[in-house]
Amino acid sequence: MTHPIIFDTDPGVDDAQAIAIALRHPELELLGLTTTFGNVDVEVATRNALLLAQLAGRDDVPVAQGAAAPLAKTRLPPPAHIHGGNGLGDIPLPAVTGRPDPRCAAQFIVETVNARPGEVTLVAVGPLGNLAGALQLDPGIVERVKRVVVMGGSIREGGNVTPVAEANMFNDPQAASRVLTAGWPLTLVGLDATHRCVLTPAHMARIETGQGELGRVLAGSYAFYRDFYQTFLGIDGCCPHDSCALAWLLRPDLFTTARGHLNVVTEGVAEGQTLFAPEGRAYAQERWSHTPLAEACLDANGEAVSDWIAEVLG
Amino acid sequence: MTHPIIFDTDPGVDDAQAIAIALRHPELELLGLTTTFGNVDVEVATRNALLLAQLAGRDDVPVAQGAAAPLAKTRLPPPAHIHGGNGLGDIPLPAVTGRPDPRCAAQFIVETVNARPGEVTLVAVGPLGNLAGALQLDPGIVERVKRVVVMGGSIREGGNVTPVAEANMFNDPQAASRVLTAGWPLTLVGLDATHRCVLTPAHMARIETGQGELGRVLAGSYAFYRDFYQTFLGIDGCCPHDSCALAWLLRPDLFTTARGHLNVVTEGVAEGQTLFAPEGRAYAQERWSHTPLAEACLDANGEAVSDWIAEVLG
Repeated sequence: MTHPIIFDTDPGVDDAQAIAIALRHPELELLGLTTTFGNVDVEVATRNALLLAQLAGRDDVPVAQGAAAPLAKTRLPPPAHIHGGNGLGDIPLPAVTGRPDPRCAAQFIVETVNARPGEVTLVAVGPLGNLAGALQLDPGIVERVKRVVVMGGSIREGGNVTPVAEANMFNDPQAASRVLTAGWPLTLVGLDATHRCVLTPAHMARIETGQGELGRVLAGSYAFYRDFYQTFLGIDGCCPHDSCALAWLLRPDLFTTARGHLNVVTEGVAEGQTLFAPEGRAYAQERWSHTPLAEACLDANGEAVSDWIAEVLG
Repeated sequence: MTHPIIFDTDPGVDDAQAIAIALRHPELELLGLTTTFGNVDVEVATRNALLLAQLAGRDDVPVAQGAAAPLAKTRLPPPAHIHGGNGLGDIPLPAVTGRPDPRCAAQFIVETVNARPGEVTLVAVGPLGNLAGALQLDPGIVERVKRVVVMGGSIREGGNVTPVAEANMFNDPQAASRVLTAGWPLTLVGLDATHRCVLTPAHMARIETGQGELGRVLAGSYAFYRDFYQTFLGIDGCCPHDSCALAWLLRPDLFTTARGHLNVVTEGVAEGQTLFAPEGRAYAQERWSHTPLAEACLDANGEAVSDWIAEVLG
């Protein structure tokens, strides 16, 4: 089976790995890349998306630029110590020859979904402003997307940018709340799954060999990202967060999921936190079960996921 | 070493077990029981505290009644399906002969702490209104208590009354925020530790034999509480939440703790959640590290804790 997807992204080192999968995997039909602020400014995200497609020989893939800022909150500076100032580990990058799609990301999503009702899966691995924007332009797409797969959030794992919040949710909690409670078929692939996975230097060596010119960018940016993981987290390797969203889509057998009701905290000290109320579980009040049912990954076979990534790109 | 303690409580089935430890353990000098709403109405809590002391032959222990309601929020009905309408599993109870201390709980705490500066440990296992009230009467007690041990909260374990909040924190989040960020030496013993511990029917059989008339009340109320655990949680046995606070005080070697900054969410969908920012861990902003350092239990040797409880009371 082939999955037609739109990949919404803020590349970013681990985004680049996931984009390579989206560009290469025979069971994915990549309808377009849509870009957002997040790991980098949106203009940098767009440049990187165009470049990665170009290096993969896939400059036919549309790249539509989207959100430059959160819906409501004040944006923090991009995390240059994690992804580099250029989003790809500050390695020298070739010139980009292509140009972005004339449409903004939200419009691109709406038109692409509506052209193929019931077929398109949205895979979003950055802050969720573009998906929120698409819902603003046409709320009816909730009935016409096949599924939404979001890399983001944390149920039990704790946060990575606050004690409880994952970065994509924290970067635009209002958008996240809109998207996670929209009532479309949705799977959340958050830190409870992605922190189980470590892409090792051995994995990356296979990827570098397998991906030609693109492989040099993936390996070079990985080296920078790996320094961050070693210095700040004491891990030799990197969590391939964004690739996990595609791994879930193509290899759901490697993940443990549960159905439940999601809520996103939009303000205060827990801002950006995702709450998950398992289906049928009674709490002191019913308010945590008022949102539509969704699916959340609670665990993953991390070694198998990382091996799968290296195999796809190796 | 003997610990002079005030035990603040809302008995409650697991409170009763902990009160039995507080009344019996040779290394605890129980200066008084202070009562709060929570598992039951405060009048019921006071009656039960008086009764448990009486059954243990310790009606010399003062019982001071405190908070009947949260500081700010609207109170939910007490959870009669967990603790019974009488707080002790709806078993028939003997008449109480004693009377409460004339002082309210907050005043009792302030006067008792100030009479023995640097010596008294406050062990609080219910909603934290009485400790917040004591801080209101005399903020200077933060310098004069020896330590505050709070059974409550959840760092990674998820909540028991909401997806993220533990009952004592949820029942009075404003009081919890005041107490957990007061800057006194504080240890939080929450669900991350207490959910590791299961008091089995075999443990309770030992306790019933060992505690005479008090043992019959502990065993009878346990049977009711156990039904709740079997029906709702699929566990054969009960988590001895409140006893864990005393277990930590007397056997800290059975717990894994970490230092960090606590915050309590006081409103919204994450109301009652405790956030823990480990000491020295950098997040996207510094705001999670602005509260005073405290200590939180992140794990426990549950089997050893449960065995310890049965041994103390057996």
